[in-house]
Amino acid sequence: MITLISDFGLNDPYVAEMKGVILSISPKATVIDITHGIEKFSVHMAAFTLASAAPYFPQDTVHLAVVDPGVGTERRAIVVKTKRACFVGPDNGVLMLAAQSQGIQQIHLISNPNLVLPKTSSTFHGRDIFAPAAAYLDKGAQPNDFGPEIKDPVTPQFAAVEQIHGGLKGEVLYVDGFGNIIINIKEKNMPNAKMLNVKLPKTSLSINFGKTYGDVEPNAPIVLVGSHGFAEIALNQGNAAKKFHLKAGDKIVVTAT
Amino acid sequence: MITLISDFGLNDPYVAEMKGVILSISPKATVIDITHGIEKFSVHMAAFTLASAAPYFPQDTVHLAVVDPGVGTERRAIVVKTKRACFVGPDNGVLMLAAQSQGIQQIHLISNPNLVLPKTSSTFHGRDIFAPAAAYLDKGAQPNDFGPEIKDPVTPQFAAVEQIHGGLKGEVLYVDGFGNIIINIKEKNMPNAKMLNVKLPKTSLSINFGKTYGDVEPNAPIVLVGSHGFAEIALNQGNAAKKFHLKAGDKIVVTAT
Amino acid sequence: MITLISDFGLNDPYVAEMKGVILSISPKATVIDITHGIEKFSVHMAAFTLASAAPYFPQDTVHLAVVDPGVGTERRAIVVKTKRACFVGPDNGVLMLAAQSQGIQQIHLISNPNLVLPKTSSTFHGRDIFAPAAAYLDKGAQPNDFGPEIKDPVTPQFAAVEQIHGGLKGEVLYVDGFGNIIINIKEKNMPNAKMLNVKLPKTSLSINFGKTYGDVEPNAPIVLVGSHGFAEIALNQGNAAKKFHLKAGDKIVVTAT
Repeated sequence: MITLISDFGLNDPYVAEMKGVILSISPKATVIDITHGIEKFSVHMAAFTLASAAPYFPQDTVHLAVVDPGVGTERRAIVVKTKRACFVGPDNGVLMLAAQSQGIQQIHLISNPNLVLPKTSSTFHGRDIFAPAAAYLDKGAQPNDFGPEIKDPVTPQFAAVEQIHGGLKGEVLYVDGFGNIIINIKEKNMPNAKMLNVKLPKTSLSINFGKTYGDVEPNAPIVLVGSHGFAEIALNQGNAAKKFHLKAGDKIVVTAT
Repeated sequence: MITLISDFGLNDPYVAEMKGVILSISPKATVIDITHGIEKFSVHMAAFTLASAAPYFPQDTVHLAVVDPGVGTERRAIVVKTKRACFVGPDNGVLMLAAQSQGIQQIHLISNPNLVLPKTSSTFHGRDIFAPAAAYLDKGAQPNDFGPEIKDPVTPQFAAVEQIHGGLKGEVLYVDGFGNIIINIKEKNMPNAKMLNVKLPKTSLSINFGKTYGDVEPNAPIVLVGSHGFAEIALNQGNAAKKFHLKAGDKIVVTAT
Repeated sequence: MITLISDFGLNDPYVAEMKGVILSISPKATVIDITHGIEKFSVHMAAFTLASAAPYFPQDTVHLAVVDPGVGTERRAIVVKTKRACFVGPDNGVLMLAAQSQGIQQIHLISNPNLVLPKTSSTFHGRDIFAPAAAYLDKGAQPNDFGPEIKDPVTPQFAAVEQIHGGLKGEVLYVDGFGNIIINIKEKNMPNAKMLNVKLPKTSLSINFGKTYGDVEPNAPIVLVGSHGFAEIALNQGNAAKKFHLKAGDKIVVTAT
């Protein structure tokens, strides 16, 4: 099984070209899209999304990620082997959040010309290098077939959560399609309280800390621990990100009342 | 075979997480998206879309629908068995329009903890409860394996068509991506006439009743019976909903000239 | 294997209805979406997109294309057999750019009522005629099973590139989701120069002719030969079409400095 994630969108032929390449090499591969709607060039958003989805796929899945602003430059192409899966993509951090959480075993460069397309463009390594590499892994190739091992992969830096008096200072990781605001505070670190003070960039609010959206009235705000294990600010049946004008990177302070 | 319909959109990891769960349980399942572009929380639009698509799938398909504003509350989770298929989702009406048209045989609660994920969140039953249920059905589980039978499912209410002198009063069910306006009047009830008077909320029009878009000039309006069996107001190669400012729920009166 | 391309979008049940029909006839078919995001009724954009993607699919793939403003009128339905693949769709040119580049062997009408749905609508031949035809081809039907051979298919006309003193006059074929501007000038015809004068409808620019986006600073313009083999004007990590206000059909003159 091979999953795909990219910032290509779904209107152009690019995703299909990758799938055609994969299925030409490994005709029985099951190919599943994680998403192609990553914000253009946002390595952070792709890293977070891949790390959210990867744990739900079977043992030995191959995950292919292409958010690649450095395509055709000196940036390296890599295969990362973990205890559960293989990850294929550019060495710009996009693979590492997901891979680290599974336990990395080896990282290899993709430099073997027999395991990529015979003619590779300078602008579309998703099709010409990463898709063939994923297909050959799916057919049984091993990471060290692709090239030499490396020990210094690029790793994405997310802001750390800070302990401040009476609470936590974190930042918005991600806003989902419902407008739910996902913050980099894990369940185990959340204050043990039924009401929380939440300080946003332009306002402060007192919000219920509940279990699900329907614990409050429609359009009322709630803080809960989302299905990804992070704290989340939401409106029941509404769009919290629009109401509070929040986006990835904004700072949030959460304290018990 | 398992189909999926939701209001999750395609940019977040949620749909992929459901697919990962399904393929971890039933690795040979064929998973087909109906759509994930249902308007957020619109049980009606999802019910209509599922009822449109389901008849075209093979016998014994499992249809999984997640438009679930009440996730994590007291609303029930159900499996509906019909003569042709199984339907899995929340008991809020989203499954029932499609299921009723196929002939319902049994409805069971999903309460058996062995047929859902070991740890279930309060906010994403699509992944934690409905996806595993669909995968186990695909592998051969029977509806009564999931929990006790129920007889009182929630059923969506669509406005009925009214007979008025010389015609019919209906309402807009759905506006599709072409801007075609689909009305809850069935083919058999349409007036037998070549020209129709169509009364919209803000205007009245005299429109040809034809067979296909190309029966009139580009950008001219036409009434026809669409591929779903309902009356449809369209512009040939244009967007009728934008031109006439119509949306789901608007009232329409159709009379023969 | 069957690929699909259309202007249906992903929010309506139409694509799923086609897939349900295909999998009811040929349950083991692998169905891959090229895109359903073609601009409504744009036969040109679909023809270009299909021609870009088709070369990457395996021998004997069936390509189904439905951009069909003339559905239900006198326009013909055809199967085109090439050396590598079969193409199925309306006879309006949408199939021909891809098919011609593979070497056309035969073109047949789809008129055999045993190889389409028993009841065909006037408005959705994608589901009722083309999807069954593609599925039967996937199961082994031959082009001449569908109907008589024809020799006069409709062929899309793209503007030819003109040689002008010192350079080339072409036009924008396509703007992709990154805002990259794809021009109908092939690699072999590009001037051999490191800097190019590029005359756009409202301005003239001197632009580097490079190999990849990262050859210039972020947000700087570059001309390169894209992964499809055509000249492309891009901004490194930016959106060239927005910056230069360009769209399909705009004229571009490229000369060496």
